Amino acid sequence: MSFDLVIRGGTIATAADVFQADIGIRDGTIVQIGDSLGEAAEVIDASNRLVLPGGIDSHVHLAQPSGDGIVMADGFESGTRSALFGGNSCVLPFCLQEKGQSLREALSAYHALAEGNCYTDHSFHLIVSDPTPAVLGQELPALVESGYTSFKVFMTYEGLRLNDAEILATMDTARRTGALVMVHCENEDAIRYLIGRHEAAGEVRPKAHAATRPVAVEREATHRALSLAEITEVPIVIVHVSNGAAMEEIARARARGQKVVGETCPQYLVLTAKDLDGMDWEGAKFVCSPPPRDEAEQEACWRGIEAGVFDLFSSDHCPFRYDDPAGKLNPKGRTSFRHIPNGIPGVETRLPILFSEGVAKGRIDLPRFVALTATNHARTYGLEKKGSIAIGKDADIAIWDPAEKRTIRHADLHDGADYSPYEGIEITGWPKTMIVGGKVMIRDGELVGTKGAGRYVARTRSALATF
Amino acid sequence: MSFDLVIRGGTIATAADVFQADIGIRDGTIVQIGDSLGEAAEVIDASNRLVLPGGIDSHVHLAQPSGDGIVMADGFESGTRSALFGGNSCVLPFCLQEKGQSLREALSAYHALAEGNCYTDHSFHLIVSDPTPAVLGQELPALVESGYTSFKVFMTYEGLRLNDAEILATMDTARRTGALVMVHCENEDAIRYLIGRHEAAGEVRPKAHAATRPVAVEREATHRALSLAEITEVPIVIVHVSNGAAMEEIARARARGQKVVGETCPQYLVLTAKDLDGMDWEGAKFVCSPPPRDEAEQEACWRGIEAGVFDLFSSDHCPFRYDDPAGKLNPKGRTSFRHIPNGIPGVETRLPILFSEGVAKGRIDLPRFVALTATNHARTYGLEKKGSIAIGKDADIAIWDPAEKRTIRHADLHDGADYSPYEGIEITGWPKTMIVGGKVMIRDGELVGTKGAGRYVARTRSALATF
Amino acid sequence: MSFDLVIRGGTIATAADVFQADIGIRDGTIVQIGDSLGEAAEVIDASNRLVLPGGIDSHVHLAQPSGDGIVMADGFESGTRSALFGGNSCVLPFCLQEKGQSLREALSAYHALAEGNCYTDHSFHLIVSDPTPAVLGQELPALVESGYTSFKVFMTYEGLRLNDAEILATMDTARRTGALVMVHCENEDAIRYLIGRHEAAGEVRPKAHAATRPVAVEREATHRALSLAEITEVPIVIVHVSNGAAMEEIARARARGQKVVGETCPQYLVLTAKDLDGMDWEGAKFVCSPPPRDEAEQEACWRGIEAGVFDLFSSDHCPFRYDDPAGKLNPKGRTSFRHIPNGIPGVETRLPILFSEGVAKGRIDLPRFVALTATNHARTYGLEKKGSIAIGKDADIAIWDPAEKRTIRHADLHDGADYSPYEGIEITGWPKTMIVGGKVMIRDGELVGTKGAGRYVARTRSALATF
Amino acid sequence: MSFDLVIRGGTIATAADVFQADIGIRDGTIVQIGDSLGEAAEVIDASNRLVLPGGIDSHVHLAQPSGDGIVMADGFESGTRSALFGGNSCVLPFCLQEKGQSLREALSAYHALAEGNCYTDHSFHLIVSDPTPAVLGQELPALVESGYTSFKVFMTYEGLRLNDAEILATMDTARRTGALVMVHCENEDAIRYLIGRHEAAGEVRPKAHAATRPVAVEREATHRALSLAEITEVPIVIVHVSNGAAMEEIARARARGQKVVGETCPQYLVLTAKDLDGMDWEGAKFVCSPPPRDEAEQEACWRGIEAGVFDLFSSDHCPFRYDDPAGKLNPKGRTSFRHIPNGIPGVETRLPILFSEGVAKGRIDLPRFVALTATNHARTYGLEKKGSIAIGKDADIAIWDPAEKRTIRHADLHDGADYSPYEGIEITGWPKTMIVGGKVMIRDGELVGTKGAGRYVARTRSALATF
Repeated sequence: MSFDLVIRGGTIATAADVFQADIGIRDGTIVQIGDSLGEAAEVIDASNRLVLPGGIDSHVHLAQPSGDGIVMADGFESGTRSALFGGNSCVLPFCLQEKGQSLREALSAYHALAEGNCYTDHSFHLIVSDPTPAVLGQELPALVESGYTSFKVFMTYEGLRLNDAEILATMDTARRTGALVMVHCENEDAIRYLIGRHEAAGEVRPKAHAATRPVAVEREATHRALSLAEITEVPIVIVHVSNGAAMEEIARARARGQKVVGETCPQYLVLTAKDLDGMDWEGAKFVCSPPPRDEAEQEACWRGIEAGVFDLFSSDHCPFRYDDPAGKLNPKGRTSFRHIPNGIPGVETRLPILFSEGVAKGRIDLPRFVALTATNHARTYGLEKKGSIAIGKDADIAIWDPAEKRTIRHADLHDGADYSPYEGIEITGWPKTMIVGGKVMIRDGELVGTKGAGRYVARTRSALATF
Repeated sequence: MSFDLVIRGGTIATAADVFQADIGIRDGTIVQIGDSLGEAAEVIDASNRLVLPGGIDSHVHLAQPSGDGIVMADGFESGTRSALFGGNSCVLPFCLQEKGQSLREALSAYHALAEGNCYTDHSFHLIVSDPTPAVLGQELPALVESGYTSFKVFMTYEGLRLNDAEILATMDTARRTGALVMVHCENEDAIRYLIGRHEAAGEVRPKAHAATRPVAVEREATHRALSLAEITEVPIVIVHVSNGAAMEEIARARARGQKVVGETCPQYLVLTAKDLDGMDWEGAKFVCSPPPRDEAEQEACWRGIEAGVFDLFSSDHCPFRYDDPAGKLNPKGRTSFRHIPNGIPGVETRLPILFSEGVAKGRIDLPRFVALTATNHARTYGLEKKGSIAIGKDADIAIWDPAEKRTIRHADLHDGADYSPYEGIEITGWPKTMIVGGKVMIRDGELVGTKGAGRYVARTRSALATF
Repeated sequence: MSFDLVIRGGTIATAADVFQADIGIRDGTIVQIGDSLGEAAEVIDASNRLVLPGGIDSHVHLAQPSGDGIVMADGFESGTRSALFGGNSCVLPFCLQEKGQSLREALSAYHALAEGNCYTDHSFHLIVSDPTPAVLGQELPALVESGYTSFKVFMTYEGLRLNDAEILATMDTARRTGALVMVHCENEDAIRYLIGRHEAAGEVRPKAHAATRPVAVEREATHRALSLAEITEVPIVIVHVSNGAAMEEIARARARGQKVVGETCPQYLVLTAKDLDGMDWEGAKFVCSPPPRDEAEQEACWRGIEAGVFDLFSSDHCPFRYDDPAGKLNPKGRTSFRHIPNGIPGVETRLPILFSEGVAKGRIDLPRFVALTATNHARTYGLEKKGSIAIGKDADIAIWDPAEKRTIRHADLHDGADYSPYEGIEITGWPKTMIVGGKVMIRDGELVGTKGAGRYVARTRSALATF
Repeated sequence: MSFDLVIRGGTIATAADVFQADIGIRDGTIVQIGDSLGEAAEVIDASNRLVLPGGIDSHVHLAQPSGDGIVMADGFESGTRSALFGGNSCVLPFCLQEKGQSLREALSAYHALAEGNCYTDHSFHLIVSDPTPAVLGQELPALVESGYTSFKVFMTYEGLRLNDAEILATMDTARRTGALVMVHCENEDAIRYLIGRHEAAGEVRPKAHAATRPVAVEREATHRALSLAEITEVPIVIVHVSNGAAMEEIARARARGQKVVGETCPQYLVLTAKDLDGMDWEGAKFVCSPPPRDEAEQEACWRGIEAGVFDLFSSDHCPFRYDDPAGKLNPKGRTSFRHIPNGIPGVETRLPILFSEGVAKGRIDLPRFVALTATNHARTYGLEKKGSIAIGKDADIAIWDPAEKRTIRHADLHDGADYSPYEGIEITGWPKTMIVGGKVMIRDGELVGTKGAGRYVARTRSALATF
């Protein structure tokens, strides 16, 4: 038997095992794993390398419009290129329904933007912002059948946030269709109340962003989202959890028998609210929601990673430029924190940060790293052929040099923003060679694949909707 | 020195002490406590009797309109007469603001109904159902100054429920004025969702009332109310708590440092959801919100009483007739549980039930009984001269026969409803003689006082707003 | 009617009420409370003063031998004098059974030491250190009948600590006799293990005392003591709780339905482990067990005081001299922390510290202060005639100047130690006049009573054994 | 390339993945996984079969002496045969040190019993019952180096139980050597106390076994064991957890940052304490420690399995005969429950019960089943080459018919006991073919392998001691 590609002699890690073997790939698929695999059109020597499933980043924002006409710093081309350089072979961006828009219209627009422009495979979560009877009764069920099996609702952001009745109706659709609901948990009314008090007190600089979204705001919404899921009897994903109190809500829900997946992100492990208190509005570079907290909450999040409160580790990549050369737009507003667009770039740094802080520092082992960054994403979101190195899976593979030392510099990254919130962090371990669907896209740090090689992937229902 | 009235030889209980002494009353006030007090215009022999502070029922609905034009079964006359027979010398009914109405208009109407008709003292909580800027900015602050120092908000009931922004604004008014906010915690949207599912399944009998308001609905709203109070930095009363999960929310809030008062009611100690499953719509007699739960939750509530999660024990008296002779109204709807007015009578049975089940059965001692039924109500709601037997307090006194055995029969009660949900419960201990403001209103079970003897009482700010 | 003594015009506080009245005292007992009480042999003007029940300090060590032949700095004379000056009219020291000694022998010795030497009333808890069948089967039941209704067991200190079987047997005696068990909760084996590691590492200075008794050591023993009480079905007092984790154990036990009283002490509100890290072994002045913790645990203890986790606030007065003039003894060892006797003085400063930090700073109100420092001690330990200002109670009264400002200086205190761990703390409010059993013992800061005026008090069973 | 054995066309499940592939085995090792593997000496057709890693039962008692000279019903031959038929390829029995015995002596004896008699691979946990300085200081460290990397301590059973000082010393040895400590958590003193009360009340039948080991007894010891591990800073395995309260202790320890592995067993999922209340001492068949609880605790344990509180699912196989033909011994005592040997058989039924109740009923998916029954055992106990289907792993494989229906009958089982506590339970799914180290031991239900084929395996340190 011959192969298109053999990756030879690496140390392979899956969510279950670490072992040495060759991997044989044919037609974009992993077809053999074993000792001394035979001839191949192409052979990659992976000795002294880790061979991991390509990362799946299931929480990425690309080409989404923000309020005030602000343009996101990454579209599909730069976003997936950056993802690829960060060790990912698949991303799940959001398709945002705007008020009055049908979901199909929104999907057409996002597919058009993505088509031919992606360096990684991709699929879309739907953001339901206008849950009309038509959307919930007809469109959504049909889309779930077509492979859009997850949707997200917001409890914050004017224009996006749904009220409880709308969340319940959307969850009920998930119940009837076997889809999975993701929830951004922050109480919008409470935030607006606190913004009012802060602005009245003249506190308008970026650090007020963190002060107006305290832990109580997130804890409240987390408990509410979990309760609504309990009442509608659906599984739920709590995205970007930032602190121990919200984690406790997840643990309590599980103790009640609920199916809950928790997600956290690099910003909650290595940033704090103090980063928002920079001179000259530099703090704006760290504005995201929920905001980073403090060292104690970082430690809590690490415990959640170690103890299994969190099954997903994503970037919540949501890039905006700090400076706009044209001077026309003001992407990181300078008058009040409330005009700073929410979100930070991170799709390229997610995996190195977790590898370096987690694996290299001995907090988690390789199977847990793989589970948190690839396997669990595939299982949670119905990417049947992805997330692992096993026979029949897509040949989506990241070859890491576990010993490489780097300092994160935005100049070295490949996204469309003009800064990284992680600038200066020292990293051990970096993905060097990326294979997507059997195609070598990056070889030893050099981009060799072409734009458009990344394909759209329809998804099956989440394992959570079954088990 | 001479007295208007001396109560001689009884066993007096306060929230702190149990002791034997005479009580000397002059001008409606307790002026002396001691051995062998001297001459008096009138002497009541209280040997072998307990002499307790008159009960304060701080959660009573009288003369309130319900939806569908249904008339409440008690106005101020029958309501306070029933309260008096049940050992109370003071009640705190609600003044319900209707949409579009000013609070002052509402107050005028309620005062007019109460004036000259009350057998007990009384004061009003305000129900804020239309928190306009005018109401929150001008009316409410002025009314707090005038002695209306507590207001209630609802998270359930269409037409009454406030959304989070409105609750936050109302709490903020409490923060600025030193008033106290009471919250009815059930998530209206979740209830409506469950009603929809039950009606769709043809489940329309009274027991569906309990099924559509499960513990999760109350727990969610309780945590939310506590979080909003945390964010606005105000003390809060969680009224009519029915279960252990909601109690846990209160305990967690206290552990965070919040000031919270918890209240429970007789229905959560001696009724269960099974009572709603009566033949021929009899279950309608037990429809109240939150609904009674099960034996395990009863036990949890007892623990809350014993361990101090609850500081208040109230009736939530909210009486409707089961049968309407005129046939004109249908106060306990026969077509779907959702048309059954929410509420049950109980102002007369509250104290005997807690005395019998709590004190006589050895769960709580007399000081705790007094605290739960009188002293804590006075302290919580600013009734400075009430709630205890001490020099300078109003001479509001209940003389109990602790050994009297009775079976609760509605025929023996004095309210305006046509049934008691507690029918048939055997009781040990009953209030026999009632003194309000120094006037003997009931003597050995006979009504001797006159309608209108009960006065309106303006209140100071809650001790919770200070400590 | 005439009185031996009238206290006129003060503001009286009980655990239930605050009110203005005169107090009439005859034959050592409070016989009348009211306006303008009549003639009296003696009148004390209490205008602008607080009139409180005399403090009861139910956790005091006097004249107890320590290991190594170290003499405690206070016997009954100086100890009760210091207590009296600190606002107490009654103390409950411990009668320590030594191994091989019968309880009656021990009692005889302590009574002999106390007899004729006390300035305050007093009663004894028994420390059971040798729970032989004779002690548990015969002696203890007889002593409970005689009014020694509480006993303490230790889970730490070599020579004192009981193993679980002994604790269970002792608790079982409490169950059969209606006595109350107090437990000092620290795991001795774990402490010895940590001492071993610290000494091996050369860490021998006072701060190692705190490091070898971490929160886990106390939390473990607290949960174990509560579990043993659950299994034997007895109420229990957890003494000197120092931190939030141990508090949580108490709260969890209550949620299971157990009867638990929690006690905390001034050292856990105003000292921290950093105080043990003084130069030149000064840290030895703060060595007590459990050790003071940190600011976060202080805050937790305050919450426990406010929220009712703690019902008792005691001193755990256990005085040793820091310097010994004779040079013969070495009461605060200078070679290793493990030779420093455990305990600090505090019987005189307990009430002013709680008044100043609690009442004056608005954390607790006067009724709560009275409950924590007097009423609950009487209720918990069966001091039927003490702990409140009510008819029939012993005339044990403290008259405070709530406005007096002082700085704690050991030079101004009256105990037998040579320092105060609270030196330098600024206080608002101090007891000025003390009445014990109707006798004025201190008048406006001057000692006017005589040694021996304080009597021994036999006790009834704890209210916890009944309710 | 040719293979010794190819398993063709099965559905393979690992802890990470489920996929279809062939498995190629050479020299007892898995060397290739892929489509259409080539020629082989032997081919097993696994179409329509599940191909799983052979089960590892890490909690098995074989040939252990019990008190009173009672003989365990299984030695290594029948025990491993029964294990093999139940889908296991490896078991970890205990080597019990008797008082005064050195660990090496004990090991020699157990190795001698096992040698040449086993049908499955095996390794030994050491039971430390006599932790002398020689044992802890010399023997144990040397044995850990030799591959005995885990030891168990008991908090119950006279003669076995260690006190806290001994547990701390043993844990400290684990800390210094990188070994892993397993703890049986029940408070022996509390059990003896309760036995005394029950026997005094004449309650001697088997159901008293459950009553004298209530949840509190297990919860207490669990919290204590976790606290001692916290203090010594070692990871810990809490074995055979039976209830939600003990689970909560594990979750709380993880929230504190501790490394804890929780184990539960079939008896806590499908038996209850009511099973002990059989007629004519039949209840003795269900006597094990901790005892089975009730339906609510079964449900709690299921949640622990689903939510990750438990990482290990073991049998705690500990077989005794109910009837002894010789009449000489009385293995299940008929005079008092306390003479009934503790333990039930279950090594053969563990996997079918979890498969049927868990996988077939949709509670857990296949990867979780594999993790709970094989992979996590290997990772926890340092069985580097076992527990998964991956290149380089031992060819330990179980081929299941997922659709086979069976009713558990002891007559069909292969252990040495004379009953099964699971008699009559209906099962879906059963292991049909077993391969151990590349050798076919059972083929389609027929034993084809030979006694002695199972080898002893030295172990590396637990992954918990590293991560």
